[in-house]
Amino acid sequence: MRYSQLLIPTLKEAPAEAQVVSHVLLQRGGFIRKLAAGIYSLLPLGVRVVANIERILREELNRAGAQEVLLPVLHPAELWQESGRWQKYGPELLRIKDRKGADFVFSPTAEEAMCEMVRRDVKSYRQLPLNFYQIQDKFRDEIRPRAGLMRGREFIMKDGYSFHATVEDAHREYKNMYDAYVRIFKRCGLEFRAVEADTGAIGGSMSHEFQVLADSGEDAIVSCDTCDYAANVEKAELKPPRPSPSPDGARKGELEASPAVAGTGALQELHTPNKGGIADVVKYLKEPIERFVKTLIYLADGKPVIALLRGDRDLNELKLKAVLKAETFEIASETIVREVTGAPVGYAGPQGRSVPIYADPEVAAIPNAITGANKADYHVRGFNLQRDVPGATIVDLRTAAGGDRCARCDKGTYRAHRGIEVGHVFYLGTKYSEPMATRFLDSDGKEKAMEMGCYGIGVTRIAAAAIEQHHDADGIKWPMALAPFQVSIVTAGKEPELADAAQKLHDELVARNIDVIYDDRDERAGLKFKDADLIGIPLRVTVGKRGLAEGKLELKARADKEARMVPAREVGAELARLIKEAIG
Amino acid sequence: MRYSQLLIPTLKEAPAEAQVVSHVLLQRGGFIRKLAAGIYSLLPLGVRVVANIERILREELNRAGAQEVLLPVLHPAELWQESGRWQKYGPELLRIKDRKGADFVFSPTAEEAMCEMVRRDVKSYRQLPLNFYQIQDKFRDEIRPRAGLMRGREFIMKDGYSFHATVEDAHREYKNMYDAYVRIFKRCGLEFRAVEADTGAIGGSMSHEFQVLADSGEDAIVSCDTCDYAANVEKAELKPPRPSPSPDGARKGELEASPAVAGTGALQELHTPNKGGIADVVKYLKEPIERFVKTLIYLADGKPVIALLRGDRDLNELKLKAVLKAETFEIASETIVREVTGAPVGYAGPQGRSVPIYADPEVAAIPNAITGANKADYHVRGFNLQRDVPGATIVDLRTAAGGDRCARCDKGTYRAHRGIEVGHVFYLGTKYSEPMATRFLDSDGKEKAMEMGCYGIGVTRIAAAAIEQHHDADGIKWPMALAPFQVSIVTAGKEPELADAAQKLHDELVARNIDVIYDDRDERAGLKFKDADLIGIPLRVTVGKRGLAEGKLELKARADKEARMVPAREVGAELARLIKEAIG
Repeated sequence: MRYSQLLIPTLKEAPAEAQVVSHVLLQRGGFIRKLAAGIYSLLPLGVRVVANIERILREELNRAGAQEVLLPVLHPAELWQESGRWQKYGPELLRIKDRKGADFVFSPTAEEAMCEMVRRDVKSYRQLPLNFYQIQDKFRDEIRPRAGLMRGREFIMKDGYSFHATVEDAHREYKNMYDAYVRIFKRCGLEFRAVEADTGAIGGSMSHEFQVLADSGEDAIVSCDTCDYAANVEKAELKPPRPSPSPDGARKGELEASPAVAGTGALQELHTPNKGGIADVVKYLKEPIERFVKTLIYLADGKPVIALLRGDRDLNELKLKAVLKAETFEIASETIVREVTGAPVGYAGPQGRSVPIYADPEVAAIPNAITGANKADYHVRGFNLQRDVPGATIVDLRTAAGGDRCARCDKGTYRAHRGIEVGHVFYLGTKYSEPMATRFLDSDGKEKAMEMGCYGIGVTRIAAAAIEQHHDADGIKWPMALAPFQVSIVTAGKEPELADAAQKLHDELVARNIDVIYDDRDERAGLKFKDADLIGIPLRVTVGKRGLAEGKLELKARADKEARMVPAREVGAELARLIKEAIG
Repeated sequence: MRYSQLLIPTLKEAPAEAQVVSHVLLQRGGFIRKLAAGIYSLLPLGVRVVANIERILREELNRAGAQEVLLPVLHPAELWQESGRWQKYGPELLRIKDRKGADFVFSPTAEEAMCEMVRRDVKSYRQLPLNFYQIQDKFRDEIRPRAGLMRGREFIMKDGYSFHATVEDAHREYKNMYDAYVRIFKRCGLEFRAVEADTGAIGGSMSHEFQVLADSGEDAIVSCDTCDYAANVEKAELKPPRPSPSPDGARKGELEASPAVAGTGALQELHTPNKGGIADVVKYLKEPIERFVKTLIYLADGKPVIALLRGDRDLNELKLKAVLKAETFEIASETIVREVTGAPVGYAGPQGRSVPIYADPEVAAIPNAITGANKADYHVRGFNLQRDVPGATIVDLRTAAGGDRCARCDKGTYRAHRGIEVGHVFYLGTKYSEPMATRFLDSDGKEKAMEMGCYGIGVTRIAAAAIEQHHDADGIKWPMALAPFQVSIVTAGKEPELADAAQKLHDELVARNIDVIYDDRDERAGLKFKDADLIGIPLRVTVGKRGLAEGKLELKARADKEARMVPAREVGAELARLIKEAIG
């Protein structure tokens, strides 16, 4: 392909609204353009990247035995009423009326329509299992879409749904899809973790997220440095803290009681004027943050509860919500905090409060802790959970973090990562098949609801995640398998013999089935190099006068600093070798 | 692929609502299922057919130099307001509000969004020409969708748009796309005509429709039996009729004056009680229909006009509308007819009417014609246009039909066909680029609106049209290039050696890159043959016990009545040869 035949409108600056790197580079590189908030057009280079992703998906999913189907974008509301999601789904669901007033949704996922497809034609256990996927436009009406393809409103998703006669078979397929996803993301050239995840709004009881590791990721995850365990921090299990240090000396690495506050004396008030935030009070009192007890006030089903955590820890709201079996769960307003503590926000302590109190085990392990005094501008020192709040329920409440002991192997330590969720596998059970009456006649003559799994991959999001993980100051560094072109050819000079050599190499690479772009624009080489780096083409060949005189071409990988000279007649084979090595 | 691995839910009966053949067979063959009125899911076989069509489209369009892009499904209303289509487009345009109340359309075509894409990044004549296409879901909210993929509401369309600096270059690209379309439809194995067409609502001044010939087609077209000319009947040109017969004898094939009514006597009233319809009065009076003059009353921009045609002819409303330069044009109500004629519908004649009268040249050639008497239950005989309506404008008004002389070559005769429109190319000029301010700086330093063309292909409709053209009582007869599988393998018997031989052949064909399905179901061979014929697989190999004993397999083409025995070791090569021959 010649550069001049494609619309590749590279930009020096991205639109101001672009905040994340992938959004900036996809626009600067001429891959996408915004048509409306969260709604993008894919330009020719964008289509090429997406086609690469889709090809990998199809190859691996077909190989895993899944069947491709294609459902429409609009699904009738009746199906969503049947599953109950019409009522439950919030404003992210785009609801549409046709000319006759019939209600539709712009499908964000397709459990209902897939159940409708299956229940119409599948009646017997003999027809199971079945696993369908589609690659189709989806819509989620995000309130503030602003991350480009990372989180658009309209986006391309691969969604898959499997149907089974037994739980065991659904679990087998879950594993099958899990393995296919591992192959897919490996082939895409992404560093990722499959992490145990909360099942959230889609439901079901088993779920893994596939997270591309990138500092800009929205999701916090931990992975063990010793075993395979990895999880979303919201889901990550934690070991209870080791027992309190024995009187004759704290265990290494555990909190050591400070002599100044040792003992079990009464609470001592400390004046902490205008130091309501944890960071401020820690700094002001010059005590280690691990000595502090955070007192958080929440409303669970409208009633206040107190959660206690060590000063450096974060509450895992899902854990407390689950302990409380609460339908609604939210942080309390300032008014409620004043009602509960008699003080402004920032000075809460659990002592003497008449609301249910839940404390993380680590809190019980802090001798003579510091916490709020329930009085403006005052904290207390000498707080001991068992003595001062004897009725507190001690339960794991905190969010896992880097440095925590692995709960699974008990040997390793968690490392913290940021991740971008690009895939998700769910075991759904009969959550949809029951309300949607997706039933079959089993071998025992009984009618049963089918067991289901569902499996999603964000196609356009993979493109963004790959950039978040692979870029530098000059632009994108596409993994070979996703790159819009694998090789770019640039001439350094305007002599016709350079163009001839470039065209000859181009034709050789096409014959070798290599995706090549020959930058034939009437521009200087420096600008062409800059564009090739911005666009992220993994390999570049420069045809220069001096090299050509010696029968050599300059070969440079996007990832390398230095170029090297390669005999012209060997360049094609060398490029093919590098590509094969990269794609595996 | 094994049959048992795919969901192919063939049906004995199609749903009652399925009226057209393709709709019946796509459902009976398990290619599609209805999700809502005019909205279909593609099952695995349907996806395979559509993928075949899309591959041909991409290959030919890329080869023709077009660039693939992908626009979203939802387009912001602002763009449609800019072009004016937001106001003009009727209820077929699906209008959608997002959670913030912003207006969108579910794109039925994408002129606006393409102009938006181009005007943002293309500023100079140096960047032109450009030709973009996409393959994307479209929506047209048809009031009565009922023909399956022939005319769905949500459907897959390939739409393309080109941008040029000059009219000449736009015409060159029009020809380029025309040629690409010819290659595409040939490769799809369709018998079609490229016909001159009215530009209709999309506008522009030059247009060809690609019509698949099929008796069930919605469109009437004529093609010359001598030259290349073909046109939609609405657009087809007509020669003026040859001069009236000389007194000494009518020309052969022309109307001969009936002795009974010859001469130029006064109008003679005929009592025709309750014979207001042309067919009724012709039958009642026992006169050739060519002697009658049809008097039609229309409202053009709200004012009545009369159109006169020979009794056996149809008015081409577009022609009269164009002659009148009318914005609105509709048949008059009964009330208006009474006002104009003083009689009920069915007895109108032009004589003595004080509204503008337009007569087709053929009317002028009928001596002593019969027409309405402007009086209930009466017609008149002896009508002569020039004498009785001297102020009438004589102009070509009628719809072309089979048997008419070709207007282009003047030698051939039109043949009438029914067609299914599967593609359409338009030269748009600046119809969209002017209102959408899609401008460029030309080499002369002047800013100009870009010249545009647009090019559409109904992807899912091609599948339906192929079936309308290729089917028999047993099912679909897919052209090889579109077939979901090229070869089906069936075992006649349950002996393991048959299954072994079938599997071996299957593996050989896969290695030869042949799309093969091995029907491994535990069913009798007769049922498998029936399903293969219904699904329309072009080639079938039956592995039978007797044949196998002789080292032979039975090979049968879907199109042939008889099977033939082929040595097993030659079957693979023979199939490859037949497929290559069919695909070309």
